[in-house]
Amino acid sequence: MKKLVESVPNISEGRNKDVIDEIVNELKKFENIKILEVSSDESHNRTVVTIVGNVDDVVEGLFYFTKKAVELIDLNKHKGEHPRIGAVDVIPLIPISGITKNELNNYVKILGERIWNELNVPVYFYADSATNEERKKLPNIRKGEFEGLVEKMKDPNWHPDIGNPFPHPTAGATVIGVREFLIAYNINLATSDVSIAEKIAKSIRESSGGLMYLQARGFYLEDKNCAQVSMNILNFKKLPLYRVYEIVKMEAEKYGTYIKESELVGLIPLKAVLDSFSFYIKLPELNLDKVIEYKIWGEE
Amino acid sequence: MKKLVESVPNISEGRNKDVIDEIVNELKKFENIKILEVSSDESHNRTVVTIVGNVDDVVEGLFYFTKKAVELIDLNKHKGEHPRIGAVDVIPLIPISGITKNELNNYVKILGERIWNELNVPVYFYADSATNEERKKLPNIRKGEFEGLVEKMKDPNWHPDIGNPFPHPTAGATVIGVREFLIAYNINLATSDVSIAEKIAKSIRESSGGLMYLQARGFYLEDKNCAQVSMNILNFKKLPLYRVYEIVKMEAEKYGTYIKESELVGLIPLKAVLDSFSFYIKLPELNLDKVIEYKIWGEE
Repeated sequence: MKKLVESVPNISEGRNKDVIDEIVNELKKFENIKILEVSSDESHNRTVVTIVGNVDDVVEGLFYFTKKAVELIDLNKHKGEHPRIGAVDVIPLIPISGITKNELNNYVKILGERIWNELNVPVYFYADSATNEERKKLPNIRKGEFEGLVEKMKDPNWHPDIGNPFPHPTAGATVIGVREFLIAYNINLATSDVSIAEKIAKSIRESSGGLMYLQARGFYLEDKNCAQVSMNILNFKKLPLYRVYEIVKMEAEKYGTYIKESELVGLIPLKAVLDSFSFYIKLPELNLDKVIEYKIWGEE
Repeated sequence: MKKLVESVPNISEGRNKDVIDEIVNELKKFENIKILEVSSDESHNRTVVTIVGNVDDVVEGLFYFTKKAVELIDLNKHKGEHPRIGAVDVIPLIPISGITKNELNNYVKILGERIWNELNVPVYFYADSATNEERKKLPNIRKGEFEGLVEKMKDPNWHPDIGNPFPHPTAGATVIGVREFLIAYNINLATSDVSIAEKIAKSIRESSGGLMYLQARGFYLEDKNCAQVSMNILNFKKLPLYRVYEIVKMEAEKYGTYIKESELVGLIPLKAVLDSFSFYIKLPELNLDKVIEYKIWGEE
């Protein structure tokens, strides 16, 4: 069984293409890492890279990626709109298939140790790897940014999870953690009345007392002249796609409208597809290895 | 994009394990061929092998598999309940992903030419590769069996598609063709009344004037004390799974019962999963490469 993971490392450089290329090239040296996207933002002065691959290669690749970024980025000279504390600011690791969150968390620790031991960059763990409640959320760790890090680290509450409580002089600190895959999912309604989408969003999202792991907002789409409920599903294992669809469908009926179509922004793990497929046709236990493509490529 | 195909070659040997092993071992020499099942039947005196892999490897592997079978099987000494005309009796090839039926048909021709040129076994094309209506169905080609083949081939209507009209003295002829993937799909009803399953089966199957590409029968399952509609979907692209499910659901309601659960026997192609998944949550165009696992393993 191949252990497939995704990672979305963020580096604090979004303007100098040569520097970005040199750092990303470290990942290209790994045959089993596939780079899905490299997205640089000039005003944020930040680049987000999306990769998938076997966990061993991904963790090895991320180390050399970090090493090169630490070598080339000096945060003392860095300005940008997006908050950051490190040259490699954050490395989320996401289990896709053949690996559990717990197992992946061991890789997070190994990567953190190596970044500290070989690069002298202290490491914080966040999200599902956090060592306390406060560190679960990235903004808490990032508060004060690189410029405030020397002071912040003096506070025993903010000692890093790995390494001594002194930031790397040019690369600050790096935050690593396991989190669930995020599914970006939009539903277009058969109405142009954006207030309906807004009301539905408000009634179903976690922040307004609805479904846990769901973020939702209402939008008006000019090109399609329709209202859209735009959502992020933060944990598709606990909040399956079909449940989101069926609840929006139900709420839309309340306002005399219905679902016209839905759309996935970006990719979806096979497991999320199978969970909803098997719900609708009542297949109690459908495993990944019933799918031919997974059977031949996912196993070894 | 990898070109993934399945094949289910049938050989006329189901008793001598050493001979079967030696023939199947030819396939094991190919790293990119995965053997899913080897199923031998003593009374049929026949073995059915199920493999998946990249088309180039599969076609190459099938040639050496055929070569070994021609070498080791003598149909003059073969007795068994199942009709057959060849040592390798039939080689179905099934497109799974990244390859069309037309493209796969070119491989069928190449394999057929090679079997004739190098092994002197004449070849018939059947199913979607058939050169006329009569040859679409295997029983038509197989009629008269190995023992009647010398006579049958004298008839210009039954000249082989490739090769001279004389059977190989010990290996007869081989039938090759492209066909669609067959999904074996059963639906269990919330009733023990088998007559309901039988009536539903009769009203929906092709042979009784229902849905094309659907075979269906009613059964009583003793272990679950329930009636089952047992089906084969012969073309899931023209008859998607969700349509079969929804029609059985509708018919069950007519008899005052409902669907308890459904089950897939064997494997299912990713495309068949996505077609039904996207139907239920109204995703108009969901391509294979939206699925992470396919994105990393299916593309090259």
